[in-house]
Amino acid sequence: MSFDEIIDRRGTHSTKWDMMEPIYGVPAEDGLSMWVADMDFRAPPCVQDAVGALHDHGIYGYFGDTTQYNDAIRWWMRERHGWQVDPDHIFTTNGLVNGTAMCVDAFTSPGDGVVLFTPVYHAFARVIKAADRRIVECQLALEDGRYGFDFDAYDVQMTGQEKLLILCSPHNPGGRVWTRDELAGVAAFARRHDLVIVSDEIHHDLVYPGHSHTPMALVDGIADRLVMMSATTKTFNIAGAHVGNVIIADDALRARFARRMAALGTSANAFGMHMATAAYSPDGAAWVDELMQYLDENRRVFDAGVAQIPGVRSMPLDATYLSWVDFTGTGMTREEELHRVEQRARIAVNHGPTFGKGGSGFLRFNIATPRARIHEAVARLQDAFSDLQ
Amino acid sequence: MSFDEIIDRRGTHSTKWDMMEPIYGVPAEDGLSMWVADMDFRAPPCVQDAVGALHDHGIYGYFGDTTQYNDAIRWWMRERHGWQVDPDHIFTTNGLVNGTAMCVDAFTSPGDGVVLFTPVYHAFARVIKAADRRIVECQLALEDGRYGFDFDAYDVQMTGQEKLLILCSPHNPGGRVWTRDELAGVAAFARRHDLVIVSDEIHHDLVYPGHSHTPMALVDGIADRLVMMSATTKTFNIAGAHVGNVIIADDALRARFARRMAALGTSANAFGMHMATAAYSPDGAAWVDELMQYLDENRRVFDAGVAQIPGVRSMPLDATYLSWVDFTGTGMTREEELHRVEQRARIAVNHGPTFGKGGSGFLRFNIATPRARIHEAVARLQDAFSDLQ
Repeated sequence: MSFDEIIDRRGTHSTKWDMMEPIYGVPAEDGLSMWVADMDFRAPPCVQDAVGALHDHGIYGYFGDTTQYNDAIRWWMRERHGWQVDPDHIFTTNGLVNGTAMCVDAFTSPGDGVVLFTPVYHAFARVIKAADRRIVECQLALEDGRYGFDFDAYDVQMTGQEKLLILCSPHNPGGRVWTRDELAGVAAFARRHDLVIVSDEIHHDLVYPGHSHTPMALVDGIADRLVMMSATTKTFNIAGAHVGNVIIADDALRARFARRMAALGTSANAFGMHMATAAYSPDGAAWVDELMQYLDENRRVFDAGVAQIPGVRSMPLDATYLSWVDFTGTGMTREEELHRVEQRARIAVNHGPTFGKGGSGFLRFNIATPRARIHEAVARLQDAFSDLQ
Repeated sequence: MSFDEIIDRRGTHSTKWDMMEPIYGVPAEDGLSMWVADMDFRAPPCVQDAVGALHDHGIYGYFGDTTQYNDAIRWWMRERHGWQVDPDHIFTTNGLVNGTAMCVDAFTSPGDGVVLFTPVYHAFARVIKAADRRIVECQLALEDGRYGFDFDAYDVQMTGQEKLLILCSPHNPGGRVWTRDELAGVAAFARRHDLVIVSDEIHHDLVYPGHSHTPMALVDGIADRLVMMSATTKTFNIAGAHVGNVIIADDALRARFARRMAALGTSANAFGMHMATAAYSPDGAAWVDELMQYLDENRRVFDAGVAQIPGVRSMPLDATYLSWVDFTGTGMTREEELHRVEQRARIAVNHGPTFGKGGSGFLRFNIATPRARIHEAVARLQDAFSDLQ
């Protein structure tokens, strides 16, 4: 597997590359796309082969029998995360934005508060708002340039109208792998305020050496209020396959979710099922291990490069390929900072404020791209801010 | 394209073939599967090539830019159905069971009545029931062995609590292509009782020579209460791609639907988008024309074959590959009839009562399979009922 290979994704209906110019005005011709969270690498050969087998077969009818799919999930969670999953607890949604939205729909009513630890993945707020629920932004604390929780402050914010908490673990953006103690703190907070916890662990496989992810399901005393979410889409770069898992051990929560799944006619597409089954395998695991070594070096190059720009620094990532870069030290206005990144450096990035409270002054850079592009991005950024040297 | 080629679908996660034994007890070894509504033919080469291109590219990220997809829909509806579609009116759901469910969710409240003309596609009742709405079964009239409407009877059934009507056009099962007059009757009925009409036209391309489908959107005076549903999945045998279209011209209905789409985080998978775009093309059209010629002969062989069995007859199909066979003339109990079809003839079929009121005594046979299997099915049925000769 060569992660160094540059593959042109322009003209392939890639949101990341084909929508960069219409949305950000970054020219398709020589722009660098570092926004949308997918990777510029091919999926593992085992996944690509699954697509090849579908091509060859040529009949694309209704998918049946989820036994093998569920077995693959169980194997992966046991082998990679030390977590035993009961196959009867697994629901398959159309990706995890749909999964999150189904949780909001199933476990809250219009007007209820849904707690987010911000800044956080922007789609959470989008679905909460569209569902006429109230977004309750509990801002993460910045300690030594890394995010942490401030539960005392959050306790004060609670009104009793909050019903659900969506946790992003590992965290996006900022890349924290929450410690077992931190997760126990989240669990205690949820118990104090009688919140259902949706733990979105879509980044759980993208963890750098030296860090270890703890599934929320392994934290004591919250099984009765916990909804786990995981997917192959981020890990294996198959977001287009639109397949995610919502795993619920509690009988009452599971029954409520099952009713909404049935009422909304939600079932999974055959491509996603075949690809995910192929991905959760020893071959898939070996590929992820290789991937993380490659991303680790990308991270090092990128962090070192942006650190050369006075007033700019990236948050040290424990996990994810989404570098969260703080530009506040430059003292520039948002317009000036964006002008330099988007117009001068010609790099498309996610804007901090879309991640909620605490996102202002930050930009999110996707570093899951061949290393040559990381070097190029660093050079362009250093050039765009060279007057600060 | 050879529709005669026998392709073994067993062991491919095909619901139709791999679930036939667990569900109906029809042995996988030599059973004939004629239930689930997908075809035993490969998708058209243009669609298979689209899957091949995805395989070769190898990067399966987020799908962006629906312009080409929407253009393909508009071309198809204009060329094949004389219907002009505004691209801003198109929503893409995860198939049309999800589309139907989203309509029930968006346009009704728990306890509201949803009208079905039964017997009709069983998934409608499933999602209505799961959503805690009331199923109002308006039974189709049998006239000369074909289905028709009896609006006088339906008027009497209405209580004022009905909010939505789901029309299946062409009809499944029974295969009626509703005439323009019949559709005008449905429209008038909906106006009289203030019902939103969801017109599921998923079978609109599968129409036999001599019949012509009228899109409900071309019927006068109902644009303000009409939701159109269509898909490539049935036409091109790509149900596994899970992609369907809900097309709404009315601003108020469209706004309500859009809110629910956003709140439920509904978006389409990349495979479905690429395949559907490839399907709605001149190559796709030529393939459908060939397909319908093949199915026309299957229909003739099947109808003639079952007509040899005393007391058994199939409804003449104007459209669809789903033959609706009346066994009531045999005078047998349901158990006896099923024993002969499933155990003796070893054919898996859909049971009539699952289609609602009026379905009793019928079985639905899927005839979209190589002709040799149609001959085999006929021979097995004639043998299983040979004592009636």
